[in-house]
Amino acid sequence: MALIVQKYGGTSVGNPERIKNVAARVAQYRERGDRLVVVVSAMSGVTDNLIKLARAIMPLPSEREMDMLLATGEQTTIALTAMALHALGIPAESLTGAQAGIVTDGVHTKAKIQNITPKKVHALLDGGHVVIVAGFQGQTAEGQITTLGRGGSDLTAIALAAALKADLCQIYTDVDGVFTADPRIVPDARKLDEIAYDELLELAGTGAKVMQLRSVEFAKKFGVIFEVRSSLNDNPGTIVKEETKSMEDVVIRGVSLDKNQAKITIIGLSDRPGMAARVFTALADAAVNVDMIIQNISHGSGAPTTDLSFTVDKSELLKAQKVIEGLKKELGYKQVIANESIGKLSIVGVGMRSHSGVAARMFETLAREGINIDMISTSEIKISVVIEIAKAETAMRAVHAAFLG
Amino acid sequence: MALIVQKYGGTSVGNPERIKNVAARVAQYRERGDRLVVVVSAMSGVTDNLIKLARAIMPLPSEREMDMLLATGEQTTIALTAMALHALGIPAESLTGAQAGIVTDGVHTKAKIQNITPKKVHALLDGGHVVIVAGFQGQTAEGQITTLGRGGSDLTAIALAAALKADLCQIYTDVDGVFTADPRIVPDARKLDEIAYDELLELAGTGAKVMQLRSVEFAKKFGVIFEVRSSLNDNPGTIVKEETKSMEDVVIRGVSLDKNQAKITIIGLSDRPGMAARVFTALADAAVNVDMIIQNISHGSGAPTTDLSFTVDKSELLKAQKVIEGLKKELGYKQVIANESIGKLSIVGVGMRSHSGVAARMFETLAREGINIDMISTSEIKISVVIEIAKAETAMRAVHAAFLG
Repeated sequence: MALIVQKYGGTSVGNPERIKNVAARVAQYRERGDRLVVVVSAMSGVTDNLIKLARAIMPLPSEREMDMLLATGEQTTIALTAMALHALGIPAESLTGAQAGIVTDGVHTKAKIQNITPKKVHALLDGGHVVIVAGFQGQTAEGQITTLGRGGSDLTAIALAAALKADLCQIYTDVDGVFTADPRIVPDARKLDEIAYDELLELAGTGAKVMQLRSVEFAKKFGVIFEVRSSLNDNPGTIVKEETKSMEDVVIRGVSLDKNQAKITIIGLSDRPGMAARVFTALADAAVNVDMIIQNISHGSGAPTTDLSFTVDKSELLKAQKVIEGLKKELGYKQVIANESIGKLSIVGVGMRSHSGVAARMFETLAREGINIDMISTSEIKISVVIEIAKAETAMRAVHAAFLG
Repeated sequence: MALIVQKYGGTSVGNPERIKNVAARVAQYRERGDRLVVVVSAMSGVTDNLIKLARAIMPLPSEREMDMLLATGEQTTIALTAMALHALGIPAESLTGAQAGIVTDGVHTKAKIQNITPKKVHALLDGGHVVIVAGFQGQTAEGQITTLGRGGSDLTAIALAAALKADLCQIYTDVDGVFTADPRIVPDARKLDEIAYDELLELAGTGAKVMQLRSVEFAKKFGVIFEVRSSLNDNPGTIVKEETKSMEDVVIRGVSLDKNQAKITIIGLSDRPGMAARVFTALADAAVNVDMIIQNISHGSGAPTTDLSFTVDKSELLKAQKVIEGLKKELGYKQVIANESIGKLSIVGVGMRSHSGVAARMFETLAREGINIDMISTSEIKISVVIEIAKAETAMRAVHAAFLG
């Protein structure tokens, strides 16, 4: 008899039929004798409609009132989900984030969970109820309604699992789990049975949209083992947990491709101390997120110059270019070049630490395919390269075959 | 500088444009220096859609979960209304019923307000904010979300006005106020400048759908003077208050017509003690609401019999007939006749008490029109007659002309 926290996203509760399917699944677990806490998101489309309503009133609504507005989305779903369980004869009661004891800070639209006092959840579980909790929302100590921002419902589930010391936390979604690569690009991609927190963090950070980083980080911090699995079938999913010795037997866990980056190169930058700092301080001041940074060796005699390259999100390219052009007089560089036709290919795996030659094997594989490497960046469990976008998918398939084929 | 509680119904906040109109009106009052608490309903259509969603899950959903679901309707409107005020540069903050301190009993879907602790409302008013409060909802002392049932938003406004000792309570609707009669039937009908609580109660009880009885009863109990007025123009509305001496100068305040009643007559009922009690106990047990009751004198010799007539809501006619037929053996009556073609015409006014001959004048007027009176019932400030439905509107115009023309 386990205590299980299940989380269902917007697609899984997108209409009354799907909510009934969720109830049927909960009923299965209950028949096994499990105790259940079910976290649900707003029905798909509902949040967007509420945002549209708000924008029709004013372009930039107050964040406090946005939270008041958006919190209704999940509140609607919890009531309907409880009803669907009642229809199956299962005692169930819904709780808003506030009622479930989820206390956050006061940063509206992206509040952080400060603590959870799940008194009511415990009482309802003890009374034999399935407890339905609104994801994505909480309440400040002063009683203000807050929302947790993107991926907030996952966070609610994982934080509740930690607070309740649940035996298992299941994140239901519309894919079967975490894959070795995006199956739409790599037909040979396989679902993983397990993955380490750090691996999932690196994959999520390199373009594989499985879960928001913050939920995984929270799970890692509090040691919450969770399973990413499909609400459309009964297949087991991917277990996400602390890395184990046996995980290192696998050289790499997955391959990801991020096509959403652009590269900026500053040519002929005077090679004096403080120049790079000036560039990246200016970008940070303009709230531009920089990902990879490469500085080549300096060349020329007399006043030596260097070329500095970095990548940013495509959506921030124009802003970044403006910042750099604004520095032209001060820095006295020769030219700025922007390139949107790049892809960032990454391999991730805790096994890298114990297997040598991983980078060499990746570069050889790309060379064999005639693919030029533009930039390289590495972490302890990740190697990323920037390559020409036209060849990025071919490169991904080749690298996947070399390590995971 | 007055403290005003305003209430806007579903039509007045039915879309973003209308919500902006509400904000513009609030801004006008604020410019005058007034402090404002604004109670809003769910946008028209929203509550019905939520009920439809619930019914798609299960035909008879739990009342606790219905409250959880329906409370989202008003929560959406308060956020949007606050945003609309922000767009005009007016500081405003929205509060759910729970946040506004509206504490109810635990009878879900028709909770009663037990008390109001408007601490947050006071704090926000003191801070110069317009306070937007979700109508129709509250919270039990244990933190369960409740709704107040039909007309609940009016009740929220009037109860808040009482708790805040507001100078004025304005109920905005889509008509100009309370009329001497329904203007669709009586072209000469006039808007009333003022009306006594009791008169409005009698009018509402006799088919004039101005406000739910409970809100008027609450206002009377706590002496809350309120104004019913239109959100579509700036005309003054109708002030509802305790009756004054001068109100008695007017013989009758208004005329109403209820076409929603049906009459049942039991013919040849044995005229023994306890027979009527048996009939109405059986009807009460079946939850049939009876309005008017008439028993004619007994006739016949030997075992005298009588005819018993009463009216019920048309929607409950079939149920009532079944109850009476089930008593046939026990009561031994001769026949039951149902008549749906009736109208109940009422005249209402505190002036009746000091003016004699009001009933005679009404009956004479009807006689002059050749209209037969089927049943009569009177209260201290009301006379109702049941007449043939085909002549009911003619009768209404004639009576209106006689007293209010």
